[in-house]
Amino acid sequence: MTPGTIYGVGLGPGDPELMSVRADRLVRHAAHVAYFRKAGRPGRARTIVEGMLRPDVHEIAMEYPVTTEVALDDPAYAASLSTFYAEVTAQLRDLALRGEDVVVLCEGDPFFYGSFMHLHTRLSDLVPVKVVPAITGMSAAWTATGIPMTWGDDVLTVLLGTMPTAELARHMANADAIIVMKVGRNLPKVREALATAQRLDRAWLVECATMAEERVMPMAEVGDRAVPYFSIVVVHGQGRRP
Amino acid sequence: MTPGTIYGVGLGPGDPELMSVRADRLVRHAAHVAYFRKAGRPGRARTIVEGMLRPDVHEIAMEYPVTTEVALDDPAYAASLSTFYAEVTAQLRDLALRGEDVVVLCEGDPFFYGSFMHLHTRLSDLVPVKVVPAITGMSAAWTATGIPMTWGDDVLTVLLGTMPTAELARHMANADAIIVMKVGRNLPKVREALATAQRLDRAWLVECATMAEERVMPMAEVGDRAVPYFSIVVVHGQGRRP
Repeated sequence: MTPGTIYGVGLGPGDPELMSVRADRLVRHAAHVAYFRKAGRPGRARTIVEGMLRPDVHEIAMEYPVTTEVALDDPAYAASLSTFYAEVTAQLRDLALRGEDVVVLCEGDPFFYGSFMHLHTRLSDLVPVKVVPAITGMSAAWTATGIPMTWGDDVLTVLLGTMPTAELARHMANADAIIVMKVGRNLPKVREALATAQRLDRAWLVECATMAEERVMPMAEVGDRAVPYFSIVVVHGQGRRP
Repeated sequence: MTPGTIYGVGLGPGDPELMSVRADRLVRHAAHVAYFRKAGRPGRARTIVEGMLRPDVHEIAMEYPVTTEVALDDPAYAASLSTFYAEVTAQLRDLALRGEDVVVLCEGDPFFYGSFMHLHTRLSDLVPVKVVPAITGMSAAWTATGIPMTWGDDVLTVLLGTMPTAELARHMANADAIIVMKVGRNLPKVREALATAQRLDRAWLVECATMAEERVMPMAEVGDRAVPYFSIVVVHGQGRRP
């Protein structure tokens, strides 16, 4: 039997109209869709495709055993996730070996800090795997600010809010344009790093870009409120332009 | 009269199926489309939408007065482009003031090193302007390698092949994952910088990602041949993973 293909399909930043034509087609025709989510939650990827799936679709909700209850550097975190990825890999592999195609729904771009990468490395030697790139959350964020991001020879650096403050500040000072992803509860640390790198006055916070809850504001106006995990900080480049 | 809207529509990396559903719709329904190109060439953006436009579409080819004949740091280059951008801005503004919507075709993502940014800054105070983000060429490039790009806290830095070698090497040494855009005739310089930063053995060259001419190979195998201007160098991150 010819094995089926596992498709890692990037859905983009959240607005279903920003899915690619290929992703839209694959999602609407899929017999099997799989997606990660936190137990008890609908799941961000699944929410994006609401109303698009076949009525008879087989859904595979891959529920993380842990998310933020265990520290990232705790060996128990890696062990728990490793077991989980092995289990869902086996499930998707078995479907593919029975000749079935499976669409894995991926928020953002699958190969850019995406959970699908953990399946890709485990599956790609076993069955056919194809990846459909997508609009990243950061593209949606800089577009939402209404200000062009990178000009001429501007250097863009992408950082994670989970990094130590001093590391954040060092990288910020070296870059022209800056993105910080996964801001969420790291906001005070990110703000401190921006101030140290003297970039705070040019920084914007974008929450839930392209979604109904989208908010865009200068970092100076954000205050100390809680912001969503997927908030993105944007500092625009100022490079050469005629 | 209600003015029309100038849409800066990102077309993505080249494969028309990787346009967003919104971009696809806007392109197919547009009464007026505008696009940059080098005189005497079909234009990359226009080529992507071949076969998609309305039979009665009004096309506005915005032809650069100079491309690579004049050095980037020559004041004549900026002056010539500045006059050109003012002219096309006036043309698009007049259409919008007559109530017409105009779709500006943009390869890649409009706000990411895009020519549309030069129109955006000139038009956005005069008439309504909307931007549709898109899949970047770099997303297409790392997807084409078949290897995930960024893991955990990996820092991604985006560089331009036009930068000085020492600057390239310094930024490469500070990053986990690296993209170099606009490689083209800067290939020898980019290779030297990668070697200095001890990243040459992990680097890939991707030409024309998602297009019929797509080529992907380790930098070590590229040799000294000419590569297209829009070639992209990819160095994958090696960050934390369970």
